[in-house]
Amino acid sequence: MSLPTHAETPVAIAIHGGAGTIERGRLSDEQEASIRSALTAAARAGHQVLAEGGSSLDAVTVAVRLLEDAPEFNAGRGAVLTFDGTVELDASIMDGASLAAGAVAGMTGVRHPIEAARRVMSESPHVMLVGSGADAFARAQGLEFKDPDWFITEFRLQQLRAVQARQQSATQLSEDWFSTVGAVALDAEGNLAAATSTGGMTNKRWGRVGDSPIIGAGTYADNRSCAVSATGHGEYFIRHAVAHEICARVRLTGVTLADAADAVVNQVLREAGGDGGVIAVDPAGNISMPFNTPGMYRASIDVDGHLRVAIYGDDD
Amino acid sequence: MSLPTHAETPVAIAIHGGAGTIERGRLSDEQEASIRSALTAAARAGHQVLAEGGSSLDAVTVAVRLLEDAPEFNAGRGAVLTFDGTVELDASIMDGASLAAGAVAGMTGVRHPIEAARRVMSESPHVMLVGSGADAFARAQGLEFKDPDWFITEFRLQQLRAVQARQQSATQLSEDWFSTVGAVALDAEGNLAAATSTGGMTNKRWGRVGDSPIIGAGTYADNRSCAVSATGHGEYFIRHAVAHEICARVRLTGVTLADAADAVVNQVLREAGGDGGVIAVDPAGNISMPFNTPGMYRASIDVDGHLRVAIYGDDD
Repeated sequence: MSLPTHAETPVAIAIHGGAGTIERGRLSDEQEASIRSALTAAARAGHQVLAEGGSSLDAVTVAVRLLEDAPEFNAGRGAVLTFDGTVELDASIMDGASLAAGAVAGMTGVRHPIEAARRVMSESPHVMLVGSGADAFARAQGLEFKDPDWFITEFRLQQLRAVQARQQSATQLSEDWFSTVGAVALDAEGNLAAATSTGGMTNKRWGRVGDSPIIGAGTYADNRSCAVSATGHGEYFIRHAVAHEICARVRLTGVTLADAADAVVNQVLREAGGDGGVIAVDPAGNISMPFNTPGMYRASIDVDGHLRVAIYGDDD
Repeated sequence: MSLPTHAETPVAIAIHGGAGTIERGRLSDEQEASIRSALTAAARAGHQVLAEGGSSLDAVTVAVRLLEDAPEFNAGRGAVLTFDGTVELDASIMDGASLAAGAVAGMTGVRHPIEAARRVMSESPHVMLVGSGADAFARAQGLEFKDPDWFITEFRLQQLRAVQARQQSATQLSEDWFSTVGAVALDAEGNLAAATSTGGMTNKRWGRVGDSPIIGAGTYADNRSCAVSATGHGEYFIRHAVAHEICARVRLTGVTLADAADAVVNQVLREAGGDGGVIAVDPAGNISMPFNTPGMYRASIDVDGHLRVAIYGDDD
């Protein structure tokens, strides 16, 4: 299908809702429909910003806000629960034009962590705020907060109980689904932006922070190369500085975005044992969405206005 | 002067204690002597580990522990104070052989934050722990804790009072000294390691985290390229993923470590307005210590066993 585009200058957006061992038949038709519908709505909302001449920063913010509100995804409302049955929310955002960036980790009550990250970028001299300090900053900024119960869905409670019953080890990692949401966009001015938001890992403990709020690991944007948002087993994505590595390969070696993203996800991460994927867009509007897991929730609207929504590896 | 080296295989170590607008005459002779003495002790202790065939991970840990205990430097004891008059300690460490890494941020009472980072790397499946969760993990690991007063020196109290008196804005950034400690080393097995530790920024607020605990920004090590520990205005070092960028340039473009480190510090960061410097070592034992500030506390023992201790830009 085709959506109207605003200008002759290309605009493009891609979003994700997590990657993992999701195979056909595991989701009910109803679940699958609601996921595809939420992905479609987020991609369209972000694209509308771009089509009206808005900035890539606004587009990724709008898309991620919708994904944070959607209880299907592990970010904002519907985030996975910690060892203590609470939510701890992480997010980051980056402006490819200026390399300005904002990140928050371990937030407990803000409705839209991506807004908190954006305010850190635009309203503070800092890049990263963590824990209760990040909450206090977001409150001082007037951002919307919700009661703890608002975030917690019955599905995540059951998931936590199942994980806790299954394992003795409190630091167990063997999840088969690394859920995160994210967006990358190219606007009509030629500026790139990337944003990522997550509740982290079910049953996480000890203030564990994954790659999502780490600029260079889960999120990176640079007009000279590309914008990347990652989702996967965060520890591996940090060690390999995945988002920055993809941008560095494009910028320093001249490979295409598709080749750089594919090599990092399907060679470097696969060999290391790091499950997951990325979404990425370059200044020409080329979109790349490789993953090394059976599935990744994803959607995109390309420079020709074509909407694509996909879940499985053979979903194209 | 020359120190004994153990094997025919080269070993090397470099350490730093912060970078900034330190100029001749600003330090008393006594202060300068105590700083040079602390730098010398840390470099020698790390080098001894290497000379006896120990690992680069052990060498950087030993060196940084000593710098954390030294009240002259902004890490561990003698860390700068937050807006609330407390210490919040960040550290990270990385193993260039395996890319294993550990990081902690916002810790409040552990004597050696670098040990906490190392335990995250070796004793947890995670890379980064923050806030009270990191403290709880370190306690569970049996690490040594100290009372809040142990960390606080009269010098830092005066510094906080001066900064708070000088500024209305609580998020003021115009510090002229970005103090951090760090070490990089090459061991006889050919393995690289990097470690960084800091108290962050005087009068910091809202759980601000700089580049020191961010793998890829303040710390990176990869046997295929180099090991880097950074010190400087952390927000710029995060946006440019400085430590990973230097390693990526060496690995992807084949430039020398000296050229890569110099370009990132003296071109990229200087143009962006990011004050600071790095220490770095490559698999051949080449040491590079560029900085774009008037001074950087630094010391190194190279592959020939030559000790060098320096403070100012013309100190060579």
